[in-house]
Amino acid sequence: MHIGRVIGTVVATRKDERLTGNKLLVTQPLNMQKEPIGEALVAVDTVGAGIGEIVIYTQGTAARYAADKIQSPIDAAIIGIVDNIDIY
Amino acid sequence: MHIGRVIGTVVATRKDERLTGNKLLVTQPLNMQKEPIGEALVAVDTVGAGIGEIVIYTQGTAARYAADKIQSPIDAAIIGIVDNIDIY
Amino acid sequence: MHIGRVIGTVVATRKDERLTGNKLLVTQPLNMQKEPIGEALVAVDTVGAGIGEIVIYTQGTAARYAADKIQSPIDAAIIGIVDNIDIY
Amino acid sequence: MHIGRVIGTVVATRKDERLTGNKLLVTQPLNMQKEPIGEALVAVDTVGAGIGEIVIYTQGTAARYAADKIQSPIDAAIIGIVDNIDIY
Amino acid sequence: MHIGRVIGTVVATRKDERLTGNKLLVTQPLNMQKEPIGEALVAVDTVGAGIGEIVIYTQGTAARYAADKIQSPIDAAIIGIVDNIDIY
Repeated sequence: MHIGRVIGTVVATRKDERLTGNKLLVTQPLNMQKEPIGEALVAVDTVGAGIGEIVIYTQGTAARYAADKIQSPIDAAIIGIVDNIDIY
Repeated sequence: MHIGRVIGTVVATRKDERLTGNKLLVTQPLNMQKEPIGEALVAVDTVGAGIGEIVIYTQGTAARYAADKIQSPIDAAIIGIVDNIDIY
Repeated sequence: MHIGRVIGTVVATRKDERLTGNKLLVTQPLNMQKEPIGEALVAVDTVGAGIGEIVIYTQGTAARYAADKIQSPIDAAIIGIVDNIDIY
Repeated sequence: MHIGRVIGTVVATRKDERLTGNKLLVTQPLNMQKEPIGEALVAVDTVGAGIGEIVIYTQGTAARYAADKIQSPIDAAIIGIVDNIDIY
Repeated sequence: MHIGRVIGTVVATRKDERLTGNKLLVTQPLNMQKEPIGEALVAVDTVGAGIGEIVIYTQGTAARYAADKIQSPIDAAIIGIVDNIDIY
């Protein structure tokens, strides 16, 4: 899994119907110092994440399980809201 | 999922028959400022996307579900047409 | 999916028996201007592609479906021979 | 699979319930000279790995099998603690 | 699939038991001129590959099929030993 920050939303009226009801959140990958790295992606929310929150996201088949929509076109999902990242 | 722009089409007469009936759209990945990033890919269309439209695309097994062709050789599919990208 | 050019072959006598009968084609990824990008990979042929031909290839589970060998160790397959790439 | 070093932990109270009971370890990918390469990721622990230990981690569907949680949102898991890396 | 060279071994006593019996080979990806590219990975051997040999490796679900351990945490496997790479 990876760490990211929710930085926005995507609205798409014409979309696969199996995405209906899923918030599409623009997620900026972060490194463990919470600095942006690489390009943002679109992930479905599964834990009620809000704008600005630091989250854990998953990709691939795991994302479809996260959304409880195994036969859906989802390939990225937010699965946790970070309290702490402790680096030793 | 990622954001892209449909920039063209690919025509292939000799192809896996399970691709028959699927439009093969050249899709240029975009960042959230709608600027091109990285290399274009080929995605099957599932929502009637047209040239120039900004879309959401998915990859991997999710793409086969998107195309409703789970036993097909599809690894990327367009699954939504973007109305808005709102970055906060 | 991605665009590539078949630039060679790989011969391996000692290999997983489920690859028997599959041509292993060295495939150079191309951008949409048909210029080489990144490193070549090895893909099984499923459409009779020849040296020099511009092809469409797929990766991951889709490649095993393309080869009709779902329980095989294949992770990349050529699934079409390109007639045209039209960029608008 | 890849080699990494456990460098920290992630705590997330609000998370997918199927992650409950799994330690979320910040894992820094290493090259074979045990030097850091690329960005750290979050992997679930399945072998009792501790901070500073050099580990083997796996990604994708393999990670869900590693965690014995095939219907979970896990896409990376630690599956071994390295005794030796012998390069010839 | 990709081409690589076996350059070493990884020993891990504490590991997922489903890896027991699998040699963990350090595999350096190569381009088609047999030059090293990118970072080495750890792949299970399925064809008796030895140190220094040039091999074909596969990743993802295909690797679990290659190892005949579909419910294992394997995400990379060596599936052939290269006799020739012929580039035209």
